[in-house]
Amino acid sequence: MRNIKVIMSYRGTAYHGFQRQINAVGIQNVTEDTLSRILADKTVITGCSRTDTGVHANEFCFSFKTENRIPCDKLVRGMNALLPEDIALHHAEDVSDDFHARYSCRGKEYIYLILNRETRDPFFSDTAFHYPYKMDFEKMMRAAEQYVGTHDFTSFCGSDNQKENSVRTIEYFNIIKDESFVKFVVKGDGFLYNMVRIMAGTLLCVSEGKISAGDIEGIILAKDRCLAGRTAKAHGLYLNRVFYD
Amino acid sequence: MRNIKVIMSYRGTAYHGFQRQINAVGIQNVTEDTLSRILADKTVITGCSRTDTGVHANEFCFSFKTENRIPCDKLVRGMNALLPEDIALHHAEDVSDDFHARYSCRGKEYIYLILNRETRDPFFSDTAFHYPYKMDFEKMMRAAEQYVGTHDFTSFCGSDNQKENSVRTIEYFNIIKDESFVKFVVKGDGFLYNMVRIMAGTLLCVSEGKISAGDIEGIILAKDRCLAGRTAKAHGLYLNRVFYD
Repeated sequence: MRNIKVIMSYRGTAYHGFQRQINAVGIQNVTEDTLSRILADKTVITGCSRTDTGVHANEFCFSFKTENRIPCDKLVRGMNALLPEDIALHHAEDVSDDFHARYSCRGKEYIYLILNRETRDPFFSDTAFHYPYKMDFEKMMRAAEQYVGTHDFTSFCGSDNQKENSVRTIEYFNIIKDESFVKFVVKGDGFLYNMVRIMAGTLLCVSEGKISAGDIEGIILAKDRCLAGRTAKAHGLYLNRVFYD
Repeated sequence: MRNIKVIMSYRGTAYHGFQRQINAVGIQNVTEDTLSRILADKTVITGCSRTDTGVHANEFCFSFKTENRIPCDKLVRGMNALLPEDIALHHAEDVSDDFHARYSCRGKEYIYLILNRETRDPFFSDTAFHYPYKMDFEKMMRAAEQYVGTHDFTSFCGSDNQKENSVRTIEYFNIIKDESFVKFVVKGDGFLYNMVRIMAGTLLCVSEGKISAGDIEGIILAKDRCLAGRTAKAHGLYLNRVFYD
């Protein structure tokens, strides 16, 4: 049995997240159905994570098992010919039996993309969060530093979380200004439900003076979702990179 | 009577070009209807040019006359609140009586945007032309040089052209490589129907060896559309800037 690792990207606007659903279309539905057609065999894929409705991925990893002997480059070309334009496969390779897109994942990098100018941009209406107010970078950076490290992130976790352990390690949380765009770039060993969106929304609250920049550490320690800021909108969020050994 | 000049941008994907139409939706339909609503008076706008179905604009200018005394900044904010997300107004100002968005225009700059890599990009499916083949920049640059200057561009004009005079002056035609993207940037005093798209398509033919780089001058002189290359797809084209005195 072959075990194949695939790297893909997708624009999440038209989908109800990655995961297969019965009453809505997830990226998984479309990808699995197309893959099953090419392999002429019902095939189940395992994604590196779930993503919310409207969230995008610059680099998403999935894996699947198959007996089919199709070469990996032919699989990528065939899939791209059949998949809709908002999903693209970039690379496929045979990997060892024990590789698992989710369990083997050592870390993920997310980007939260903000268009920070008065007027919206028609080319980014569904791919960046439009925030027209002045941002206080000094305050946000001071707050973001406190995200870094190993903490129990219960305060930054949406109520639908299904994970038992809320301790995660954040390696970095950078704030990058690039003309009218502001990027929050965060890498961690894993993330709780809505965690990046709550981290991003909390920084906006800090910028607005609704939460004090020095309070982040206390908010983390309190393990109380009510103390953190709002959940930033989904369409600014990108799964940017996934890391494996 | 006030005469107001407005700068806007739009993502052309959902529209049948700029111009108002009866059996399809042009940018003009939506913009005029919204403006008429805000001014509480049926208002006609004059655009700086037509654009084809699916063509985008980073900077498009229109003008209109009104008796309404609404301040320009309020007009912009009001329009943006009502317009769909793929159209945005950036600026409005009172101008002299004789200003006319089309007749006063001294020049236009277009960009033809190409994604030049094997795999498509889900985030540019409708905003860049995906061209997966290797490009010969030396040949294309040699060909593009011959576009520059004052010529009769009949060979580079679609059959629906309604303009009597086919002589236009091209100030520059630059080819810029930016990672996986290639931009053709062309400025002229005016353009015939489909002219930029045929210029772009012809350069691709030159890159592919179907047209010789040295033949462009002869193709221009022949005044025969059949000798130039194909019309490049609309969704890679942007009206990038419009110039007035």
